[in-house]
Order: sequence, then C-alpha cells, then structure tokens
Amino acid sequence: MIDRALYHPDHSAIDIDTSVTTLETTGTAPPSIPEIIEYLANAPHRVILVDNTSATSLAEAYPALLRRGFSIITPNMKAFSGSYQLWEDIFSSVQAGNAVVFHESSVGAGMPIISTAKELVATADQITRIEGIFSGTMSYLFNMFASALGSSGSGESWSSIVKKAKELGYTEPDPRDDLNGLDVARKLTILGRLVGLRVESPTAFPVQSLIPKELEGTADGQTFLQQLDQFDDRMKSYKVAAEKEGKVVRFVGSIDVESKTLKVGLESFDTMHPMATLKGNDNIISFYTKRYGALPLTIRGAGAGADVTAVGVTGDLLKAIAQLR
Amino acid sequence: MIDRALYHPDHSAIDIDTSVTTLETTGTAPPSIPEIIEYLANAPHRVILVDNTSATSLAEAYPALLRRGFSIITPNMKAFSGSYQLWEDIFSSVQAGNAVVFHESSVGAGMPIISTAKELVATADQITRIEGIFSGTMSYLFNMFASALGSSGSGESWSSIVKKAKELGYTEPDPRDDLNGLDVARKLTILGRLVGLRVESPTAFPVQSLIPKELEGTADGQTFLQQLDQFDDRMKSYKVAAEKEGKVVRFVGSIDVESKTLKVGLESFDTMHPMATLKGNDNIISFYTKRYGALPLTIRGAGAGADVTAVGVTGDLLKAIAQLR
Repeated sequence: MIDRALYHPDHSAIDIDTSVTTLETTGTAPPSIPEIIEYLANAPHRVILVDNTSATSLAEAYPALLRRGFSIITPNMKAFSGSYQLWEDIFSSVQAGNAVVFHESSVGAGMPIISTAKELVATADQITRIEGIFSGTMSYLFNMFASALGSSGSGESWSSIVKKAKELGYTEPDPRDDLNGLDVARKLTILGRLVGLRVESPTAFPVQSLIPKELEGTADGQTFLQQLDQFDDRMKSYKVAAEKEGKVVRFVGSIDVESKTLKVGLESFDTMHPMATLKGNDNIISFYTKRYGALPLTIRGAGAGADVTAVGVTGDLLKAIAQLR
Repeated sequence: MIDRALYHPDHSAIDIDTSVTTLETTGTAPPSIPEIIEYLANAPHRVILVDNTSATSLAEAYPALLRRGFSIITPNMKAFSGSYQLWEDIFSSVQAGNAVVFHESSVGAGMPIISTAKELVATADQITRIEGIFSGTMSYLFNMFASALGSSGSGESWSSIVKKAKELGYTEPDPRDDLNGLDVARKLTILGRLVGLRVESPTAFPVQSLIPKELEGTADGQTFLQQLDQFDDRMKSYKVAAEKEGKVVRFVGSIDVESKTLKVGLESFDTMHPMATLKGNDNIISFYTKRYGALPLTIRGAGAGADVTAVGVTGDLLKAIAQLR
C-alpha cells in the first residue's frame, strides 16, 4: 500500500520517468477528497481523473467530481456495483457536468465487454441473455477440476487445486474472497445495470458461494484451506453429476434480461461448448441478442492482470481525449 | 439495384418514415460524385456520409470527401482493401480535414474487430499474430464438411454442401466469389494495414483458391457447380489428412506480424480448438499479443448479414457524433 501522494501545488507537470522514485523520496501525505476536488478545480486544463484504486471512498465521490466537469476513467468495480442510488447519481452527474465516465476494465479487464454491451443497447439491438465466466480464478479452478479434454480432468481433488492456485498467486490472498462469488456478482451487477435492469446490489440476487456453510466461521484463509479437504466429496458430486450427462461443471454468471433474473453459481455445459473448452485463467462472455440470432456474440481472453487492465484503462483514456477535445 | 436518389436541394430533412415510398415514387437520378461533394459542401451542419454501397467509385472519392471535412462511416471493404496508395490517401486526408472515418463493419460486421485492433495498437500492446475464420460462407461450408463433433462430420460430399449453401442463400450468387478466397484476403489486408504492415493489395500475399484449376475457365457459376463433384476427392483428401492427426480442416486467414506474413487457405486444428468447434456461419478472430500472453483475445459471432452490419454502422455513427459534437 502506497500512502503517499505526488503533485505540484502550482499544477506544473510531473516528470513521469522519475515519478516512482520521486514519490518514494519526496511524496507527501495523500490529500483528502475535498482537497483533491479543490486542487483539480484550479487545474489550467480539462481534467480526466484516472482512478486506479479500489477505494470505496473515492468511488462515492464520483458524482461530486463529475458535477464539477471532471471526467473519470477507472477499473474500479466498486462505484458501479455498489448501491443503485450511487449508480444513478454517477450517470445523472455525467449529464450535468459535460464529462465522461468510462470503466471498460471493471468487467473483463481490457476486453471489449462494457463497450459491446453499451453499443448493443445504443444501437437498439435487443439483448436477451448474457452469460459468462467472469472470474479468472474460477476459470482456472474449474478448467483444472473438470477438464473437457478428458472426462475426469486432472483427477486432482478440489481442495488441492484451490491450494495450488493460491500458491501460484491466482487467488486473492484469502481464497474465500474468490470462492464466495461476490466478484462475479459485482461484474454481473454492472452488466445488468448497463442493459437497463434496476439491480439494487450484488447481493440482491442468488449467488452460490463455494465456501461450505460449515467453514463460514473459520478465522482466516489459512485455517479455511486446511479444512477444505473435508468437503472435497461435495464438489466431486457436482462434477460427477455433470459427467453423467456428458457435461462439465463451470462457475457461471448469467442475466436473463426478459425475466430480469441474475444468477451466479454452478452450471453444466456440453464438452464442446465454449464455456467447457476454456483454458488457463481465461474469461468468456456471451451476448445473446435478437440481431445475432441463435448463436451469441462471444468474447474470450485474459480478464484479469495488470497488463490487460492497463490496455483497458489506456484505451478509455484515449477515447475520452478524442471525445473531449 | 436502386438507381434513384432522394434529397432536397435546399437541404431540408428527409422524412425517414416515408423515405422508401418517396424514393420509389419521386426519386431522381443519382447525382455524380462531384455533385454529391458540392451538395454536401453547402449543408448547413457538419456532414457525416454513411456509405452503405460497395461501390469502388465512391470509395475512391473518400480522400476528396474527407479533405472537405466530411466524415465517413461505411461497411464498404473496397476503400480499405484496394491499393495501398488509396489507404494512405484516406488516412492522410482524415488528418487534413478534422473528420473521422470509421469502418467497423468492413471486417466481421458488428463485432468489435476493427476497434479492438485499433485499441491494441493505440495502447502500445504488441500484436504478434491475428488469425481467424473471416467468411461466414467458408465457416458454414467447413462446419458442415468437417465437424469437430464426429470425426467424419455430416459425411456429405464437398460439392453437395456447396450446392446446399447456395440454395440456402449462404453464398454469393456465384459461389466462386466465395471460394476464390478474395473476400477473406480483403479483410486480412485491412487488419494487416491497421497493425502497421504495408500490404500492397489483397493479391500481394498467398491466397489459396478453392476453385479447382481445371474449373477456372467455366462460363458461369451454374456450370461450375455442375462440374464441382468431379473434384470431391481432392477436398476429401484434405479432410482425411487432418483426421489422421485428430484434427479438422478450416479455411483460415492469418497474419504473422513479426515476419510480416499474410496467408489465406486451409489449415488444420485440434477438435477442441475454438476454430474447430465453431458453429453455423459464425466468424472467429483471435488476437495474440504480448500483454494477453499465451492465450489470445478471441471474438466470435455472426460476421455477416444486414442486421449485424447495421449494429456496426449505427455504432460507428454514434461514436462519430459523440466525437464531433
């Protein structure tokens, strides 16, 4: 955690090449949010704020920032998957302030997911269903656990795959933060709202947690991991049930637009289905629409990681500059 | 073919709801290109020309239109896959005229292919390879001919699949216009140029034609189709050779960016590969880049047809309006 700030009170430019060193040596305490707003209000040019934090406090200040005419670019999911009130505040403030707010990287990192959803809506196509594997961690766990290549995958137990994923750095420091499904629920909340559904919060629809009820009270992630093998049979039963139908099990988020139903949890897919043949940590998101017909528009690739998130943030920044020039 | 024009010399608006009837009853002869330029130059507002033709003559006028400050939106491949000179003229004229030229639908219809290629370049990712199935017709033919589901697909002969595709309206009126590979070569030319390669023309790199040499001189598409079954064994040999390696054969376009190599023709893929498990008429395009790593960013869906082309053209129009406002 960096708790230092680097900025010039006279708004002169920061030398990017030396910025990290300068931050470490002469950085000051971070300004408060009202101080940030005042600082930006005195900027000699138009302001685009790139929020690369995952801070809720800053996200909650977006409406105030936008009303001052500052545009916002961010991969921060928090602002868009919090309360519906905040979502409405943000987008009504955009209209008031002649600013833009772009957040492509909040779902699927640099992949064109948000922009595709927005374009389908803007061009009056009728989205009927969105479904996908929205978590790189869940993708990896299930690609290892129930591979479509052979009916029994790697044969490894669920708990040992989770442990290995943590060792490889593929999970959050506490793997329960992946297994509770909330990350997927947040992304689904954003997409649901983009297609016009009033999704109150990421806990306002069914989300299947892969944390066994019995382990919900464990003190920490380490204790949780040590006890997880007691529940391997439970996960195996899901896998075996899918196999009996010639399918594989995956952790999926889906939005049925007509019935306004959002859902996160385990589902089974034929072994030739794009969800089943996924590899590595890849995300996959499919848009079923009236114009695309029976087969969806599907986007697949790395949906997490600093490099691809940077593609999304920088792409948003370039779009904002083109639009605001 | 409509050879009528509908426009008001005083630039007053056309009533969209009645426009088709009005065109049919009172439409006049189409103006020449110099007349179009003069008409638009007197328009009271900024001009965005939406070119929904596939006319080469209009495409060749893009530089002149852009230099006058008219923006262009089009699904027309011709302008972007013709001579490299025209490509350069178009994009240098954009800079001169403070206009935009968007052509998302020239590759993959409404799917975000052009915008993704441009964004990867603009954000300084390093694209190493692009490969895909760029033709809905070729996709259908090979999904029927060599299905990944069973080792022998539908078992139907190549010529009977081509005939059926024509009956279903999935091919051009003369199926040789699909089988010669030129449509794929044009799309590949556009993508190659977008990623910075100086591709002189769509015939400046190897393109495998599926028209047997012996039938190149046939008088028309009908005669061609009648004689195609004599060459079924040749296509079957490609299929069998792939099957021996546990693969299926597909008609693919690929760009190897480092070696500056473009190529269109038959290639084989493992039955679990996304190219192999494609369905219907779907297109699929994969971008291999430094930031995405070993697994590519892949986009799949309907890449032809009026409905999805309309998504792309309308999406471009909305982007142009946002940027030019």
